[in-house]
Amino acid sequence: MTEIRTAIPDDIDRYLDSLVRTGPFASKAELVRAALVAFASTAGPIAAGFDLENMVAPDGRIYQLEYAREGAMRGAPGIGIVYAGGAVLATPSPTSPLISKVEKIHRVGEKVAVLSSGIVSDARMLIHRLRTAEPKTTEELKDRLVELYWEHGVDRTKRPLCAQLLVASALDDDTRLTEFDPSGATVEVNAAAIGMNAKALTELLEKRYRRGSAQQAEKLALEALGSPDKADVVHVTI
Amino acid sequence: MTEIRTAIPDDIDRYLDSLVRTGPFASKAELVRAALVAFASTAGPIAAGFDLENMVAPDGRIYQLEYAREGAMRGAPGIGIVYAGGAVLATPSPTSPLISKVEKIHRVGEKVAVLSSGIVSDARMLIHRLRTAEPKTTEELKDRLVELYWEHGVDRTKRPLCAQLLVASALDDDTRLTEFDPSGATVEVNAAAIGMNAKALTELLEKRYRRGSAQQAEKLALEALGSPDKADVVHVTI
Amino acid sequence: MTEIRTAIPDDIDRYLDSLVRTGPFASKAELVRAALVAFASTAGPIAAGFDLENMVAPDGRIYQLEYAREGAMRGAPGIGIVYAGGAVLATPSPTSPLISKVEKIHRVGEKVAVLSSGIVSDARMLIHRLRTAEPKTTEELKDRLVELYWEHGVDRTKRPLCAQLLVASALDDDTRLTEFDPSGATVEVNAAAIGMNAKALTELLEKRYRRGSAQQAEKLALEALGSPDKADVVHVTI
Amino acid sequence: MTEIRTAIPDDIDRYLDSLVRTGPFASKAELVRAALVAFASTAGPIAAGFDLENMVAPDGRIYQLEYAREGAMRGAPGIGIVYAGGAVLATPSPTSPLISKVEKIHRVGEKVAVLSSGIVSDARMLIHRLRTAEPKTTEELKDRLVELYWEHGVDRTKRPLCAQLLVASALDDDTRLTEFDPSGATVEVNAAAIGMNAKALTELLEKRYRRGSAQQAEKLALEALGSPDKADVVHVTI
Amino acid sequence: MTEIRTAIPDDIDRYLDSLVRTGPFASKAELVRAALVAFASTAGPIAAGFDLENMVAPDGRIYQLEYAREGAMRGAPGIGIVYAGGAVLATPSPTSPLISKVEKIHRVGEKVAVLSSGIVSDARMLIHRLRTAEPKTTEELKDRLVELYWEHGVDRTKRPLCAQLLVASALDDDTRLTEFDPSGATVEVNAAAIGMNAKALTELLEKRYRRGSAQQAEKLALEALGSPDKADVVHVTI
Amino acid sequence: MTEIRTAIPDDIDRYLDSLVRTGPFASKAELVRAALVAFASTAGPIAAGFDLENMVAPDGRIYQLEYAREGAMRGAPGIGIVYAGGAVLATPSPTSPLISKVEKIHRVGEKVAVLSSGIVSDARMLIHRLRTAEPKTTEELKDRLVELYWEHGVDRTKRPLCAQLLVASALDDDTRLTEFDPSGATVEVNAAAIGMNAKALTELLEKRYRRGSAQQAEKLALEALGSPDKADVVHVTI
Amino acid sequence: MTEIRTAIPDDIDRYLDSLVRTGPFASKAELVRAALVAFASTAGPIAAGFDLENMVAPDGRIYQLEYAREGAMRGAPGIGIVYAGGAVLATPSPTSPLISKVEKIHRVGEKVAVLSSGIVSDARMLIHRLRTAEPKTTEELKDRLVELYWEHGVDRTKRPLCAQLLVASALDDDTRLTEFDPSGATVEVNAAAIGMNAKALTELLEKRYRRGSAQQAEKLALEALGSPDKADVVHVTI
Repeated sequence: MTEIRTAIPDDIDRYLDSLVRTGPFASKAELVRAALVAFASTAGPIAAGFDLENMVAPDGRIYQLEYAREGAMRGAPGIGIVYAGGAVLATPSPTSPLISKVEKIHRVGEKVAVLSSGIVSDARMLIHRLRTAEPKTTEELKDRLVELYWEHGVDRTKRPLCAQLLVASALDDDTRLTEFDPSGATVEVNAAAIGMNAKALTELLEKRYRRGSAQQAEKLALEALGSPDKADVVHVTI
Repeated sequence: MTEIRTAIPDDIDRYLDSLVRTGPFASKAELVRAALVAFASTAGPIAAGFDLENMVAPDGRIYQLEYAREGAMRGAPGIGIVYAGGAVLATPSPTSPLISKVEKIHRVGEKVAVLSSGIVSDARMLIHRLRTAEPKTTEELKDRLVELYWEHGVDRTKRPLCAQLLVASALDDDTRLTEFDPSGATVEVNAAAIGMNAKALTELLEKRYRRGSAQQAEKLALEALGSPDKADVVHVTI
Repeated sequence: MTEIRTAIPDDIDRYLDSLVRTGPFASKAELVRAALVAFASTAGPIAAGFDLENMVAPDGRIYQLEYAREGAMRGAPGIGIVYAGGAVLATPSPTSPLISKVEKIHRVGEKVAVLSSGIVSDARMLIHRLRTAEPKTTEELKDRLVELYWEHGVDRTKRPLCAQLLVASALDDDTRLTEFDPSGATVEVNAAAIGMNAKALTELLEKRYRRGSAQQAEKLALEALGSPDKADVVHVTI
Repeated sequence: MTEIRTAIPDDIDRYLDSLVRTGPFASKAELVRAALVAFASTAGPIAAGFDLENMVAPDGRIYQLEYAREGAMRGAPGIGIVYAGGAVLATPSPTSPLISKVEKIHRVGEKVAVLSSGIVSDARMLIHRLRTAEPKTTEELKDRLVELYWEHGVDRTKRPLCAQLLVASALDDDTRLTEFDPSGATVEVNAAAIGMNAKALTELLEKRYRRGSAQQAEKLALEALGSPDKADVVHVTI
Repeated sequence: MTEIRTAIPDDIDRYLDSLVRTGPFASKAELVRAALVAFASTAGPIAAGFDLENMVAPDGRIYQLEYAREGAMRGAPGIGIVYAGGAVLATPSPTSPLISKVEKIHRVGEKVAVLSSGIVSDARMLIHRLRTAEPKTTEELKDRLVELYWEHGVDRTKRPLCAQLLVASALDDDTRLTEFDPSGATVEVNAAAIGMNAKALTELLEKRYRRGSAQQAEKLALEALGSPDKADVVHVTI
Repeated sequence: MTEIRTAIPDDIDRYLDSLVRTGPFASKAELVRAALVAFASTAGPIAAGFDLENMVAPDGRIYQLEYAREGAMRGAPGIGIVYAGGAVLATPSPTSPLISKVEKIHRVGEKVAVLSSGIVSDARMLIHRLRTAEPKTTEELKDRLVELYWEHGVDRTKRPLCAQLLVASALDDDTRLTEFDPSGATVEVNAAAIGMNAKALTELLEKRYRRGSAQQAEKLALEALGSPDKADVVHVTI
Repeated sequence: MTEIRTAIPDDIDRYLDSLVRTGPFASKAELVRAALVAFASTAGPIAAGFDLENMVAPDGRIYQLEYAREGAMRGAPGIGIVYAGGAVLATPSPTSPLISKVEKIHRVGEKVAVLSSGIVSDARMLIHRLRTAEPKTTEELKDRLVELYWEHGVDRTKRPLCAQLLVASALDDDTRLTEFDPSGATVEVNAAAIGMNAKALTELLEKRYRRGSAQQAEKLALEALGSPDKADVVHVTI
């Protein structure tokens, strides 16, 4: 469990104490947890009601897209780094003896590789669309993927796709690394992290990233991931 | 019935006693059951409202997919184990004199067999899709099945499929065993259990699994299932 | 009316007496009935809200499928029994002088017969699908029927089919008897009962069923049905 | 207005008297009517919520189909009677001087006639389907009509058809009379009544029906209908 | 404004007086109006909830169809009268200097004319369907119009058409005048009124209608309409 | 802000004064505004619930169509006037230095021009339908436009179009000016105003309209619009 | 955080002080924030309920289109300016070392460029529609874009597109700059700003805009944007 600390006035504290002494709660911590649950179930986002639909809230935000971004950050982290003449994608592999293979990095043809986080089937169907579409350029590749993301965020009979992708593409003259998020937004990056702890990993990459060799990129990626026992590592080169 | 024990303060206890003495409840146990039902019908998951729809909750989870996983774990357990040169699927058979045949393990062509748990028709339609699609490789097989799972978890006018599958495939050079869950997630495994008690059976397999012969695999599967009187056992070999 | 008996504390009883003396109810029985109706309309299943939709409840159940099973058990009972070289389906016929014919057992070609309970048009459309599909094997026959059941239990814009079927098929080498329920689940049986009192009839069949001759099977079926004045009886043989 | 009588305790009665003396109601009768309206708008059927949708209620009933049956019994009554070599359909005609023709009995080709009650356009569209389909046998005729009924009772985006039909068909060797109700259920009958007072008329037919000549059948039909001033009468013969 | 008169007990009256003296209302009339608005917004029809949907209410009525009939009676009245060898349709014309033409009576080919009330575009689309379908007989004409009415009253994603039509047709041997209402019901009439005050006009026609000459029919129609300054008058003859 | 004046009893006034002295409101005006907002959010139209859907209210009105009419009257006013041999459409132009062109009057071919108010894209799509349909007569033109309006007011999955149109057409022998409103109603007029202040402008036109020359018509239109600095003026002539 | 200042009566202030002293809030500021949140979640727009749907509110507004406009103003600002013989689009570029490229200005063929703000995928799909449609004139270009905006604001199963566009087109004789907003409204401008602070930037452009040379236009655009370190600048010329 996560510890939360907060200061409360003495009067209130004494009142809480009496609640614990006379009420059904075993401790003040238990009382606070119950209060939080009760509060969370009534005090939703200001835009309550707007967040269950693919519609626009009064403040111009589309909450389902933001919740989908939350969902896309679930699962093991992954990192992508561009180097001179190529790009590397890396992610830890599970170590259970029963698991023979997990699919986190998929090759699409010889010149494209995709790393994903979030709902596995959402990611798989995005990759499937890519396989079927056979794009000739990175721009075309982006159109095909954004299309599928977009159809699911603009239609009230669907839900947004809960998957982030890092796509390394050598379809053009240069190796390009693109990050896709559930809203269908794309950014071309030199290095990026997705999945659990993406924010912390991104800050680390911002500090340490230098465009270098394939070996340097792979080394940085694995160190950032905490040097896992087993890892999937895929290189895409021109 | 399951027994639940909990400690309550003496003050509360005395109050409950008086409620039983003066109120309509025959015993304290009955009073507690009534309280639990009343509580359960008001105190849903924090993300109440999100769990009846194929939409994303504020914490990034899609509750319908999780409930479907619950549904997929209903029904008799089943086990799949990979061995050198093949894989075995096993599940207990019903013993009622009136039942002549139950379908738990289906062959799809000569090189694929499927074991399922959960809603029978959901599983049957997944298998039907496989028969119609006639995949040439295990990857293609996975695309076809995930597609059907995914269509039902991403569309608000449908419900997720409540079926887990264990698919043994000899379509490639090697025999591969893949587990599919209602979210469309897939894992390639050496051994796995689905259905009722899947969690306990998986822990047992984690301890005892060694890649061995066909006979050893079948023996382990049946022992894990509690050595049932009757069982369906299907082998897939290269 | 069904009589329900329950014990209540004396205090409560006296309170109820006073309610009858001073209030609008003519008797204590009337008061209890009113209380039950009031309770039933507020205290639905724990998973209230999930039971009006083709969606999965938190406990993994799909309530609409269970309610449809309730609906499928309405109407006159029917029995099917396999014997050496064939199978018999039987159900009582109505005896009103105005009714010239009721359709409970339908022949589909020369080798298939179907007995149904529940909503008549749901059953008729299932049979119609069978006639149109012209299956060549019992497996194919099952795929076609399950498909129609499934489409109605997985789509939120439809309702599940409230019909149970007992299908006797001589499409294969052997005569096979299959039971279908509203969830699309199928079981191959030697003997089975559907419709009103199906549970009691099944227990009776479990005790008395032996694979015998056509005459023995028909005799058992009619006795189990209470030897009705008029009955529809259909035999399917290889 | 319909008179309802009920006994109430004296205490309650005195309380009602005082309500009339001091409150806004002009009489006790008015007070009771107001109470009934108030009650009816809060105390719906036990399965409240299920009755506005084409879905299954917890008790296995589909309320919309039952309400549609209510709707189908609105409008003038009609009677059909089979005799040796034919069948007759009869229904009273309106007598207003402004009305030149009302459509209650429709001929469909030379060998089929249809009498209907309930929503006029629902009936007309059922008949239209029959005209378009041009069935060759009575069974085919039944499939076409049940299909249309069924599509409207199984789909949540539609409403059930509020029409009962009595169809006299000489498409086969014999003249057959079939009754269709909004759930798509069909019964083949020797005699039947639909529309207003159908229940009382059916009981009368049960007592007096004998298979006789065309004249006897028509006489019975008209007498049962109360010997109206004007009537539509249609005979179908082989 | 419409004046409503009602008798109330003196006690209540005095209470209302005091409410006016001490409360925010300027007069007793104002108080009554506020009370009516408050009552109307809470005390809907007994079948509240059923009346916003194209579904059947517990009493077998489809409220949307009845509300649509209300809507169809809005707008200027119109009258149709059959005479020997033809029929006349008549309706007052607006007299505003800015309006150059209003469409109330439409010719469809040489042998059909249509007078409408209610939502103008609903009527226009019905007429458009007629133009496109080019029916050869009056029965065919009725099928085409009823079809469009019916599709809008049986489908939950649509609303009923709020238009009444009076169609004069010389497509057959005789000139026929048919009234269509929003439920798709049709009546063949010798004379009929639609739109505002339709009920009073119909009673007038019932008293004065005699089948006569074209001139007599037109004279009766215009007198019934109050001899308006300007009027559209269309004759259809064989 | 608009000033609203109302008389209240002295008692109430004193009560309001005390509320201002002791409560959070800075003045009585502020208190009244808050009261109005609170009232408006609870005391909706009598037919509350019917006004968010394309369905018919109990009084036969379709509120969405009336709200759409409100929406269609937003935006700058426009005027159309028929003269001998032609018609003129006129509307003020914006004067901001940044705006190079606003589209209020669109030519469709050589013989038709359209002036619109309300939602710009709704109007544009109506005009687009006209361009695509290429009508040969004014009646055909009206059918095409009404069709699009109608589809959006009769279907619950769409919203009504919030646009009024004034269409000047020389497709026939005469120049005709037609007004279209969001319900799909059309009126042929000699002169008309749409958009903001349409009602006042119409009254002015009723007083001053005489059929005259092109110059007189344009002069009247511009004067009615308040002689704006810049204006779009389009003439359609035979 | 934004600071809000407001005057309150002393009495109220003292009451708030006491709430802070005795209640759970740490400061008066915290108390006010809590009050605002509580208020905002209950006191929505007067037309509450209308703002979650693509439907018309009683005041004729379509709130979803207004909320979408809010959403379209999120993200970095952009400016477009017409000059003699061409037009320039400009927007700041992100400066993070990890980002290699952000797409804010897209070329569509040689004669069109598009600058966007709001939801990135909404903008991308608008641009994609443009690429596919290959318009030959600016009017055609506008029809294609408005069509897509419109389909998403008129259909209840979709949500409006949250993207503003500035399109520079040299498809005609002149270079034209058009602004598109989420309602599908378009304005042709000499200069315009979109995205964050659009209102302030527009006022600045209104003051400083003069039609000049390409260099002057680019200079004005960049100065208005605050002379960012990095910027995307695209020129479109005839």
